[in-house]
Amino acid sequence: MIDQEAPLSLILFSGTDDRLGAAAILATGAAAMGRPVNVFLQYWALDAFRREKIAAWHGAAPESGPSGATLVRESQAQRHWSELFQQAKDIGDVKIHACALSMELFDITPADLDPLVDDVEGVAAFMSDATQGPITFI
Amino acid sequence: MIDQEAPLSLILFSGTDDRLGAAAILATGAAAMGRPVNVFLQYWALDAFRREKIAAWHGAAPESGPSGATLVRESQAQRHWSELFQQAKDIGDVKIHACALSMELFDITPADLDPLVDDVEGVAAFMSDATQGPITFI
Amino acid sequence: MIDQEAPLSLILFSGTDDRLGAAAILATGAAAMGRPVNVFLQYWALDAFRREKIAAWHGAAPESGPSGATLVRESQAQRHWSELFQQAKDIGDVKIHACALSMELFDITPADLDPLVDDVEGVAAFMSDATQGPITFI
Repeated sequence: MIDQEAPLSLILFSGTDDRLGAAAILATGAAAMGRPVNVFLQYWALDAFRREKIAAWHGAAPESGPSGATLVRESQAQRHWSELFQQAKDIGDVKIHACALSMELFDITPADLDPLVDDVEGVAAFMSDATQGPITFI
Repeated sequence: MIDQEAPLSLILFSGTDDRLGAAAILATGAAAMGRPVNVFLQYWALDAFRREKIAAWHGAAPESGPSGATLVRESQAQRHWSELFQQAKDIGDVKIHACALSMELFDITPADLDPLVDDVEGVAAFMSDATQGPITFI
Repeated sequence: MIDQEAPLSLILFSGTDDRLGAAAILATGAAAMGRPVNVFLQYWALDAFRREKIAAWHGAAPESGPSGATLVRESQAQRHWSELFQQAKDIGDVKIHACALSMELFDITPADLDPLVDDVEGVAAFMSDATQGPITFI
């Protein structure tokens, strides 16, 4: 029973639209089941959540090739991962945190971030919410 | 005791042979210990499980460089990750599911997939099998 | 209560400095909270832990681009991920294991590895320490 409600801790590292899309689907699926979700934005994923960049094309994994990248781009045009994260937040207990160290590394201020992001926190705070449940790195 | 039997939920996203090889080893190791394994194929990993593509060379991570890619290629020629997945299924409770959304994105039908794949399911079904245990994204 | 002490099992696959940096921060955060951490080095991450290579520049994810790679390089010059792993080992119960199969694949001997690495083990041994808690693949 304990684990039923264990939160899903999602560390988003990669900033390509295919991985962000996969992450958004996971978050939405977990939220729909009533599972709390804590998202932690690091490195290139944090960069992709900048207010001015979030709707831009962020590329796909190198292995996708040109035709694969086109597929990802078209699917994102239909339903963007940022909309899915908004939907996940609307239906469930989903928090999106910016990693303090990555904020510093990329010289990003809270005002630079899309409103989807709830706050900035350190890895200790993130890890203390993740003592139970999976920690999934994307 | 509960967690002893918690399934390992493996989300395969990447379709390069080095990552698929690492995933196959994990699945085999878990299956050998009697742990249930649920594999969920998304994006480039799903593409790599096409019947006509599964035995082909799918490349290695860009960081591997030419010499690293050769190493991966040679190791896959000796024991391919698809054989390891078959072995994992032979010895344990290992299910391989194709992500319904990725099937649609890549315009793949069930008949296109290698027989290693058990079925097509949505993220909700996958997540409902993953309320306990790790969720590992590869 | 059981899960409070569940170890964090970190599989390091990628050998780029941005991913190794993210892994080191996670390991340090977990160790600081008193959580046991088991690190399993595979493929490119194992290669990066070679004694003669560990301090070298290992590149960043392709998506980083030249300016992103420079950022990563500068941050690593200030505080290298290998120092963070050392710090994690100093403050907590952190073990770093080299994957036996990857040792063979890359023709690496224990003497080739940085002293941060505790031992060589097979995937079965790693998985038997990971029956509880998250398994995070980086």
